[in-house]
Amino acid sequence: MRWEKDLLGSKEIADEAYYGIHTLRALENFPISGYKVHPKLLEALVAIKKAAAEVNGELGHIPQEVAQAIAAAAEEVLAGGLREAFVVDALQGGAGTSTNMNVNEVLANRAIELLGGKRGDYERVHPLNHVNKHQSTNDVYPTALRMAAVWLLKPLSEACARLQQTFQDKEAEFASIIKVARTELQDAVPIMLGQEFSAYAQAVARDRWRLYKVEERLRQVNLGGTAVGTGLAADWQYIYRVNDRVRQYAKFGMARAENMIDITQNADVFVEVSGLLKALAVNIGKIANDLRLLASGPRAGLAEICLPERQAGSSLMPGKVNPIIPEAVNQASFHVIASDTAITLAAQAGQLELNAFLPLIAHHLLSSIDILTQSVTIFGSHCVAGIRANQSVCRNNLENSLVSVTALVPYLGYDTATAVVRQAAASGRTIAEVVQDMQLMEPEELDRILDPHHMTMPLQRR
Amino acid sequence: MRWEKDLLGSKEIADEAYYGIHTLRALENFPISGYKVHPKLLEALVAIKKAAAEVNGELGHIPQEVAQAIAAAAEEVLAGGLREAFVVDALQGGAGTSTNMNVNEVLANRAIELLGGKRGDYERVHPLNHVNKHQSTNDVYPTALRMAAVWLLKPLSEACARLQQTFQDKEAEFASIIKVARTELQDAVPIMLGQEFSAYAQAVARDRWRLYKVEERLRQVNLGGTAVGTGLAADWQYIYRVNDRVRQYAKFGMARAENMIDITQNADVFVEVSGLLKALAVNIGKIANDLRLLASGPRAGLAEICLPERQAGSSLMPGKVNPIIPEAVNQASFHVIASDTAITLAAQAGQLELNAFLPLIAHHLLSSIDILTQSVTIFGSHCVAGIRANQSVCRNNLENSLVSVTALVPYLGYDTATAVVRQAAASGRTIAEVVQDMQLMEPEELDRILDPHHMTMPLQRR
Amino acid sequence: MRWEKDLLGSKEIADEAYYGIHTLRALENFPISGYKVHPKLLEALVAIKKAAAEVNGELGHIPQEVAQAIAAAAEEVLAGGLREAFVVDALQGGAGTSTNMNVNEVLANRAIELLGGKRGDYERVHPLNHVNKHQSTNDVYPTALRMAAVWLLKPLSEACARLQQTFQDKEAEFASIIKVARTELQDAVPIMLGQEFSAYAQAVARDRWRLYKVEERLRQVNLGGTAVGTGLAADWQYIYRVNDRVRQYAKFGMARAENMIDITQNADVFVEVSGLLKALAVNIGKIANDLRLLASGPRAGLAEICLPERQAGSSLMPGKVNPIIPEAVNQASFHVIASDTAITLAAQAGQLELNAFLPLIAHHLLSSIDILTQSVTIFGSHCVAGIRANQSVCRNNLENSLVSVTALVPYLGYDTATAVVRQAAASGRTIAEVVQDMQLMEPEELDRILDPHHMTMPLQRR
Amino acid sequence: MRWEKDLLGSKEIADEAYYGIHTLRALENFPISGYKVHPKLLEALVAIKKAAAEVNGELGHIPQEVAQAIAAAAEEVLAGGLREAFVVDALQGGAGTSTNMNVNEVLANRAIELLGGKRGDYERVHPLNHVNKHQSTNDVYPTALRMAAVWLLKPLSEACARLQQTFQDKEAEFASIIKVARTELQDAVPIMLGQEFSAYAQAVARDRWRLYKVEERLRQVNLGGTAVGTGLAADWQYIYRVNDRVRQYAKFGMARAENMIDITQNADVFVEVSGLLKALAVNIGKIANDLRLLASGPRAGLAEICLPERQAGSSLMPGKVNPIIPEAVNQASFHVIASDTAITLAAQAGQLELNAFLPLIAHHLLSSIDILTQSVTIFGSHCVAGIRANQSVCRNNLENSLVSVTALVPYLGYDTATAVVRQAAASGRTIAEVVQDMQLMEPEELDRILDPHHMTMPLQRR
Repeated sequence: MRWEKDLLGSKEIADEAYYGIHTLRALENFPISGYKVHPKLLEALVAIKKAAAEVNGELGHIPQEVAQAIAAAAEEVLAGGLREAFVVDALQGGAGTSTNMNVNEVLANRAIELLGGKRGDYERVHPLNHVNKHQSTNDVYPTALRMAAVWLLKPLSEACARLQQTFQDKEAEFASIIKVARTELQDAVPIMLGQEFSAYAQAVARDRWRLYKVEERLRQVNLGGTAVGTGLAADWQYIYRVNDRVRQYAKFGMARAENMIDITQNADVFVEVSGLLKALAVNIGKIANDLRLLASGPRAGLAEICLPERQAGSSLMPGKVNPIIPEAVNQASFHVIASDTAITLAAQAGQLELNAFLPLIAHHLLSSIDILTQSVTIFGSHCVAGIRANQSVCRNNLENSLVSVTALVPYLGYDTATAVVRQAAASGRTIAEVVQDMQLMEPEELDRILDPHHMTMPLQRR
Repeated sequence: MRWEKDLLGSKEIADEAYYGIHTLRALENFPISGYKVHPKLLEALVAIKKAAAEVNGELGHIPQEVAQAIAAAAEEVLAGGLREAFVVDALQGGAGTSTNMNVNEVLANRAIELLGGKRGDYERVHPLNHVNKHQSTNDVYPTALRMAAVWLLKPLSEACARLQQTFQDKEAEFASIIKVARTELQDAVPIMLGQEFSAYAQAVARDRWRLYKVEERLRQVNLGGTAVGTGLAADWQYIYRVNDRVRQYAKFGMARAENMIDITQNADVFVEVSGLLKALAVNIGKIANDLRLLASGPRAGLAEICLPERQAGSSLMPGKVNPIIPEAVNQASFHVIASDTAITLAAQAGQLELNAFLPLIAHHLLSSIDILTQSVTIFGSHCVAGIRANQSVCRNNLENSLVSVTALVPYLGYDTATAVVRQAAASGRTIAEVVQDMQLMEPEELDRILDPHHMTMPLQRR
Repeated sequence: MRWEKDLLGSKEIADEAYYGIHTLRALENFPISGYKVHPKLLEALVAIKKAAAEVNGELGHIPQEVAQAIAAAAEEVLAGGLREAFVVDALQGGAGTSTNMNVNEVLANRAIELLGGKRGDYERVHPLNHVNKHQSTNDVYPTALRMAAVWLLKPLSEACARLQQTFQDKEAEFASIIKVARTELQDAVPIMLGQEFSAYAQAVARDRWRLYKVEERLRQVNLGGTAVGTGLAADWQYIYRVNDRVRQYAKFGMARAENMIDITQNADVFVEVSGLLKALAVNIGKIANDLRLLASGPRAGLAEICLPERQAGSSLMPGKVNPIIPEAVNQASFHVIASDTAITLAAQAGQLELNAFLPLIAHHLLSSIDILTQSVTIFGSHCVAGIRANQSVCRNNLENSLVSVTALVPYLGYDTATAVVRQAAASGRTIAEVVQDMQLMEPEELDRILDPHHMTMPLQRR
Repeated sequence: MRWEKDLLGSKEIADEAYYGIHTLRALENFPISGYKVHPKLLEALVAIKKAAAEVNGELGHIPQEVAQAIAAAAEEVLAGGLREAFVVDALQGGAGTSTNMNVNEVLANRAIELLGGKRGDYERVHPLNHVNKHQSTNDVYPTALRMAAVWLLKPLSEACARLQQTFQDKEAEFASIIKVARTELQDAVPIMLGQEFSAYAQAVARDRWRLYKVEERLRQVNLGGTAVGTGLAADWQYIYRVNDRVRQYAKFGMARAENMIDITQNADVFVEVSGLLKALAVNIGKIANDLRLLASGPRAGLAEICLPERQAGSSLMPGKVNPIIPEAVNQASFHVIASDTAITLAAQAGQLELNAFLPLIAHHLLSSIDILTQSVTIFGSHCVAGIRANQSVCRNNLENSLVSVTALVPYLGYDTATAVVRQAAASGRTIAEVVQDMQLMEPEELDRILDPHHMTMPLQRR
């Protein structure tokens, strides 16, 4: 055991703990959700600490050997080490201070060890005077959140690219399978199954484009702004250099904002990004609904496609196989939409110079991205890639339907065409039969017009 | 034109206006939504004003003739008069003060007229010293909101009762129509169409029960609490009597809360009520989805039921008829869920002794109730009442399906039953054929077990 | 390694795994969120399995020794054992089937062991034919969800009771501390600090009452309804007895619903319960906001109360102590409101005979309850209990203010009182000074009226 | 009276009605919300009808005189005429068909009149065969919605520009007023009041930029796609030309989408746009909260600024003036966030080839833009422009505070600085006094470091 103290008094810390008293207080204060702080957020914080230590060392603000020890400790964490030392609950009061303190303490104690000291010997390396030098939670935490988000968006973007490709493959595969399109769930007009999948591909392509644009929203940071964005207690040289250094570690075009006061207090950018994630959630949720609908059956449903079988679907009904992957996608979609609510609530509750609720935003934003990445991935690999068309069902449904009547409107007018289809519906005959019966058109012209493939595109140029 | 003044100066008011300077200021301040204050909210406020004037007159706080004139003016409004004088936007700052002022001014000016004076002659009847005597917006507005909500919930409850009855009628009508039940949109087990409608009836019955319970949530009011619930500037006799009098006008068991400070500042009750409305929205939205699905087709869908035709469905596709009433219900459902978001946001934003955002809560809560009442009504009358069953489709779907396999599990076990259904699916044969082929059961027993009607209920006691 | 097979083929299972092939498929299918299935949901499922095994054994549907082994395995889990064997992601497709399968497999394998067999030897104890006998995911999962919710609501209710008591203690402690009430953040009228805390206590009391009522909403279950609520493949004796048995284990008034078809497909009850949790979230969020506001400062804020110091507040600003517990409560409140969105989305997306999205509802509902329990607890113990009043600030603020003017309205009328307060504001004098200056009242009467304590209650009848 | 008929039968139409039987059916079907279809949505539809008539006339698809009459009727509506003829409820089932039909019928009947006929004489001009020629609700309605949204976003963008400028004016005006910055509502460090307003200006600038980018999201349309985006029943020449013509009328870079099937069924773009509106709502809501907080008082609050007085604030408390404009902005913000929920729900509920819930999206999206435009406008003109600073309060609060301690951290270290501030707090002395007392620094250096103006920026370059 060792004793550490803070402004409230002293606490005993277990010898093996890399964290210190500030972290311990946070553990006692926030036994709330059991959710962990996202590892990428920790890594971004640690990368910032490394950069700050290096710059502070170079500028002489802290001793070089201290700087090097902190940087070495940071490297260990970035390489995957010491992770069990980051213990504070994801849902914490205090605008992220406890997570920042946790990082400061762990890096300090590890640096102390690297310098040959014992944990808690903060004379050697101090969590605040050295590790946190020139920093405030209020600048490092929002910066780290932006870094983590950009990092996580890349795999999501790639997952979307793969899903788009998978839909495009299916578009090609199903290009010549003709079927009934449905609007408002009612038989509408002919369409190619491939055309349906082209719309899915296009929707996901739009999501990719959005995600691509997101980086620029998240690029501006307030690193160096310290407590409220004014930069109090930092110096200009440090501010310039630390932003340069962190940009190298971030590996994207991170840049210090002109107005760091704004960035420190406003979380609207996270609302914006979450809104884009929500658009993706809406798209994959809609597609999942469609696929479940088209695959309904196998006998008493639409059954125009078959989803790949992934597991037995029922503990009671033998042989039942359910659309579990789209269902999982639907739930991920709902989950992300709900997280958007949390992010919005937290963002609008910022007050004056700070938004104290960034930890909630961080939790929901980063886990939304993760869940989307996983969902988009399994959607493509476990479901869409294996979809097969029931070509005969598609064709039978079409031939059995009366949707060809719309192709007659340019020739017969809306009211006559209505009369035709009503009579066909009432009598159980086809559109063609009724038209011929009513002697409304020449058979050859009728054949030409009612060719269903022609109906899947505009009238030919004349 | 006449001139009126307030603490900010003087303004010209059109002669024909029953409202005065406070209302005019509000008109200038809040050109926001164009939505009107709900008429029932106005009526509740006016009923409170009438009660307060009467009680104040009886207690000698204001002259009897003034009290009578205010009461007479209030009667006119309650009878439907003067409605064009209530002009303030529904989305207003100020916790409802502008609506209260609007009511005070209109009643005062009308009372002045009734006493033979000219509008604006507030020596005779003063909007604040007389009409608003012993009141604050902060007690009369929340009280009026509760009254209006209770009043509006009654027609909603009745609409739900009618919808429930309509579903029960259909339950009886469809009691013997057997069909395939679907779980996760996959063929599951046999069910009666009437059983499906019984579930709808039961869900709506639960909503009715909830609405019935809502009144007691809204019953407690802070009338007499004045600005913050402490009752400053009112006297006890007035407080007791005015609550009695308003209860008579409210026509439900309204009661002054023990702790009026709480009621003045907390809007959680509206969140609770809105949550119950949302449960209703969820139920009718789910049912609307089901009906649209079951009625999908007419040829290339499930087509197990037909919804009544209400209008031509397409400007392009002749003869197309869409499920427009369920679609409207779906949208009403979404609308109400969205209003719940608004109510929640406003409720949690209350600060200290008051919730300044009650006008937003009032707008969303009251319009949610209205929209639900209308939607539930047309759902029943324009859609559910006219639903017809496609009995042959129901039966064909069932016979064509393999769902009877589940009935064999108690006899064959899950794994063997799985083998049976997989073979039936692969070979296109029926369950019975495969079982017989595999010589798994005696034909008589098989017939008995596979009787689909038996499958719509538990095994008989033996 | 052992091999297991299902309708899709065979898979190798690690020898040490208690779960089987169905669980393994689910692991591969749902690498989505990393969230665990809530332990109470698992325990409820296991309790149902135990009851079902016992009843099936008693009725001769499964061998007595198998029933006993299953019951013994279930006991082990209920006692806290085998928990690492429940591995399926909380966000799973399939309406809970994978969790049910996971439980079936673990209990079967443990029961096999208890009978002297080796895991995977399902001839002895079969996950479906024995453990899941007469059950479907669609009846056991929703039943277990209701049980888990009721179980978790009890500690939440107790936490609310403690918080209410803590507020009441403060109400008593602060009963004689007079201060300025604020409406719309503007100085309003005098109030006792104790009165403010009484409103908090009352709001929480209302939440307790709501939670108390919730049990009856969750009491009705569809256990025995099997796949769609019709009870197919179960028998009546089993249905009656298993409900009795589970009621004993549930330890609350659980009852089989009249209409199990309804309960199987409709999730509105979870929306209702979530709406009540949201009302609690709104209340504690509002109170947390108030406390942060009243404790703002220490020098440049309202500073009427001091929150207990819980940890150093800033890594940059020495000595800064922040209202971290209320901030955590605010975030918990936002989190719960967001979960309500998820629950609503999932509930309204149910289709026909089943809601496939119950796993999402379960995750959000149960974690909302947990998070609320934790937040309410630390709110009371770590914050409210330690609040101290700054009596001198309260009094100075009041004396410095002009709020006493409202007490003069009954005597001077609104317009004259307005003139008084405007003049006081402009000249920097007190209300009393201006009134005397303007010779509006006798000094004795003025003193009596302006006694601030009188202003915290209605006028006395004299 | 005249009689009209449709596929369901005949109905009597009032002679004076410009609408016909399809509209009448819709009136009977949708007595839901009382909300009107947004006028800009109608105008966009009418502009499309005009373009289509002209192009169809030019291509010989309809007679030239009919085309000209339709165009003339359209011009009348665009000039503000005939508006009372558009009567269908904004919340309608049917994907907008009823609104489209309403427009078709009104234009047809007016065109008939212009050609000398009588309303209802559809031989002359037919609502569907002529006005709706080559169109489907499913292509014209989404196109019109995009046009209306772009049109309405321009005034919103301009309002934001004005608000930004107003904040910048205040930034300049308050550039030298030093005060306490607050994080987590606790005294933090010195800041200039002008700096605070610069952050508001910057947040609004970001919103402007977002709105500027929105147009490109809405630019792609499916005009010519007819029922499902395949263009059935239209011809290519018409499709090309009508898009060109509508682009002229739209007055922005509208373009036909490559994949019109996608645009017909997917509403994610509206979710995206709504998400950006929500970011704006979050920003102005946060600023409104801040202003209400900074203006709290006048005596017992922070009182660092004064908002312009807009109206008497209380019917009970004389002289009370409330922050009604920010409160209205807060409510508008909540309203817009709620509408985002509605839009999201509707968007994710699209099925297969169409989203039937576009009318709800249209209502919420367009009214959100309107309400934001109005709110942003009054926020600037009625509130921000008139804000005055209470310079002495700002300075007194700062001098009275202990926030200067942070400036000492680079010199004393965090722990010593903590000791200093704790002692100052306990003893009621200033930071400088305690430092001198403890002989920690030379007085001259201390003076230099503690100059509050230096504390509003980083340390000088050395």
